[in-house]
Amino acid sequence: MKNPVFVLAPDSFKESLTAKEVCMAMEKGIKKVLPEAVCIQVPMADGGEGTVQSLIDATGGEIHHRTVTGPLGQPVTAHFGILGDGQTAAIEMASASGLHLVTKETKNPLITTTYGTGELIKACLDKGVKKIIIGIGGSATNDGGAGMAQALGVKLLDENGLELGFGGGSLGRLAKVNMAHIDPRLKDKQIYIASDVTNPLCGENGASKIFGPQKGATPEMVEILDPNLTHYANILMKELGKDMKDFPGAGAAGGLGAGLLAFTNAELKKGIDLVVEYTRLEQKVKDADFVLTGEGGIDFQTQFGKTPYGVAQTAKRHGKTVIAVAGYVGDKIDILYDKGIDAIFGILPKAMSLEVALKTGQKNIEITCENIARLVALAGAPARR
Amino acid sequence: MKNPVFVLAPDSFKESLTAKEVCMAMEKGIKKVLPEAVCIQVPMADGGEGTVQSLIDATGGEIHHRTVTGPLGQPVTAHFGILGDGQTAAIEMASASGLHLVTKETKNPLITTTYGTGELIKACLDKGVKKIIIGIGGSATNDGGAGMAQALGVKLLDENGLELGFGGGSLGRLAKVNMAHIDPRLKDKQIYIASDVTNPLCGENGASKIFGPQKGATPEMVEILDPNLTHYANILMKELGKDMKDFPGAGAAGGLGAGLLAFTNAELKKGIDLVVEYTRLEQKVKDADFVLTGEGGIDFQTQFGKTPYGVAQTAKRHGKTVIAVAGYVGDKIDILYDKGIDAIFGILPKAMSLEVALKTGQKNIEITCENIARLVALAGAPARR
Repeated sequence: MKNPVFVLAPDSFKESLTAKEVCMAMEKGIKKVLPEAVCIQVPMADGGEGTVQSLIDATGGEIHHRTVTGPLGQPVTAHFGILGDGQTAAIEMASASGLHLVTKETKNPLITTTYGTGELIKACLDKGVKKIIIGIGGSATNDGGAGMAQALGVKLLDENGLELGFGGGSLGRLAKVNMAHIDPRLKDKQIYIASDVTNPLCGENGASKIFGPQKGATPEMVEILDPNLTHYANILMKELGKDMKDFPGAGAAGGLGAGLLAFTNAELKKGIDLVVEYTRLEQKVKDADFVLTGEGGIDFQTQFGKTPYGVAQTAKRHGKTVIAVAGYVGDKIDILYDKGIDAIFGILPKAMSLEVALKTGQKNIEITCENIARLVALAGAPARR
Repeated sequence: MKNPVFVLAPDSFKESLTAKEVCMAMEKGIKKVLPEAVCIQVPMADGGEGTVQSLIDATGGEIHHRTVTGPLGQPVTAHFGILGDGQTAAIEMASASGLHLVTKETKNPLITTTYGTGELIKACLDKGVKKIIIGIGGSATNDGGAGMAQALGVKLLDENGLELGFGGGSLGRLAKVNMAHIDPRLKDKQIYIASDVTNPLCGENGASKIFGPQKGATPEMVEILDPNLTHYANILMKELGKDMKDFPGAGAAGGLGAGLLAFTNAELKKGIDLVVEYTRLEQKVKDADFVLTGEGGIDFQTQFGKTPYGVAQTAKRHGKTVIAVAGYVGDKIDILYDKGIDAIFGILPKAMSLEVALKTGQKNIEITCENIARLVALAGAPARR
């Protein structure tokens, strides 16, 4: 029997372990049973929180920090990653403009800005990259990416030729877009927006009505924000010839999707697909005997582009056995079996609080993967002999 | 591929499910994946609580109830089982004389009696059985089985020829044993004492000092109980020629072991071995592809004669793959892998209280076994191909 090859491709276990740490726990458990096993660690993500860390960990890249403008104009320390290829950067917009950077009292999408995200993009350009992957979940903003554009040198002017202030509340006064001073380095750079959101910019399913409230928008604010984004889209069409009003996905991150699509060479892609591509997961699973994946929580929503789903789809193209572990295994997971996950195991060894579960994730993943390895590689499958 | 055969041989999940109910949950999970699988249910036990139920369930026997004398002399409803062979009875002494039949205030091994256990034995004899299996865990008594003997017709007399009262406190007055009126049906009956205890009747490791306190014995009581059992052993030796003083296991159940060995044709056997034998587990595992076992809790103590250990030992004599599930998976379980359990999986799908865990056992076992079946029988084991 040749040494079995395990590809370890989990997402992070939120509030417990990074994807890399999950990989290490998985490997430790497997190696306890099969010291000669080959374990290929591919820390994964789906475009959400942890995507930069996983892409860096998976490719041997580096994290960099910058002080940028937070959603309320305050200075915040944000990070971005340069992947192992040296040519690709990864950003999470939430790092600069995320909901965690405002409080319950201060969250207000009339004034929150994506300016810091634009500054992060500039920082990536300073590193000489050719491509930028932007994960856009968890935003505190509803400014249509206007702040991001301003940080990149775009002038957004009112009818008096004065620069707009920050936030979705100002967009109603937009009259003119001046592209003369946009960062020239953007011209030949490709931006990939990692997003699973298909909402348009405006209207009933638009950014303001659907996502505004969770960012602090009252019904009255929504009545300002949504028309403002419509006006913004009209101006973008008129000034740049970019039709953002009904573009699926333009409503992601309070319209940052629209801003990136209008002002840069950007393309929307599913987060998990980008991570699969940039971690070279497909090449790695080709030689695997088993593919292990997992996430803090797995439930029926996992099928909508979460990491275990994407890993399973990739692995199944090569007929591999896919086993998932999770701290929380929700209901209605049967659909996942049809989507390529062969088996799912909870990791908790006993009744415990969530707090204890989060603290003991590493050990619990290790022991569960140890037993999975025992079962699949040691015990074998007599029924198939 | 032939239809895979699963032998399902779990213990009960205490306070949650009987062993039979665990079997049913396991089968439901397996059949969801492999509708054509053959599932052979063998509800197990290890001589402790639930042994009668499991032996009845595994052999297609019947439970019977009798009102007998409780440990404090009060009437209690106890049960015994007649196995499917119609020739073997099974008793748990705790059903008639157990610690759960006294309160914290009333537990007092000076006066508690095994009389009801003797009545249960008589009830079994009334059913015409040839063999009786007695599980002797959880006793409230420290009477050396004196009450049991009295119920079976043995006269235990003081030096004035008067019958002794109940309890370990009376044994110091024992002067004479009159066997003339012992139930004559006992003569050709075999009794198997299911016990993993090796403690002797008396002394430092004896029944009174080791187990007395948990039955309510104060240090002062122990100073009466232990010498009384020594005196009792001396009289048994003098009157019956039975040397119980240093017999390993005679101290089980407050000396009920000694009483059964002295007054009946009894033999001590490990509980799990008796259950393996009477459920015919060995014959059943011979044709299995996989053996599933489990217990409410599994930890390093499982190796000391608990059901998953006994099932694994039996299955490994035939080279079968053994997989265990548990609600509680304790530390230091590595030793169990060496003892024949190939893999162990916790069943909890998320952080939860013990109360919820106990209530959701059935569903959690079902889903875990479903995924085990998916893994071993569907996904296969490429590494071994």
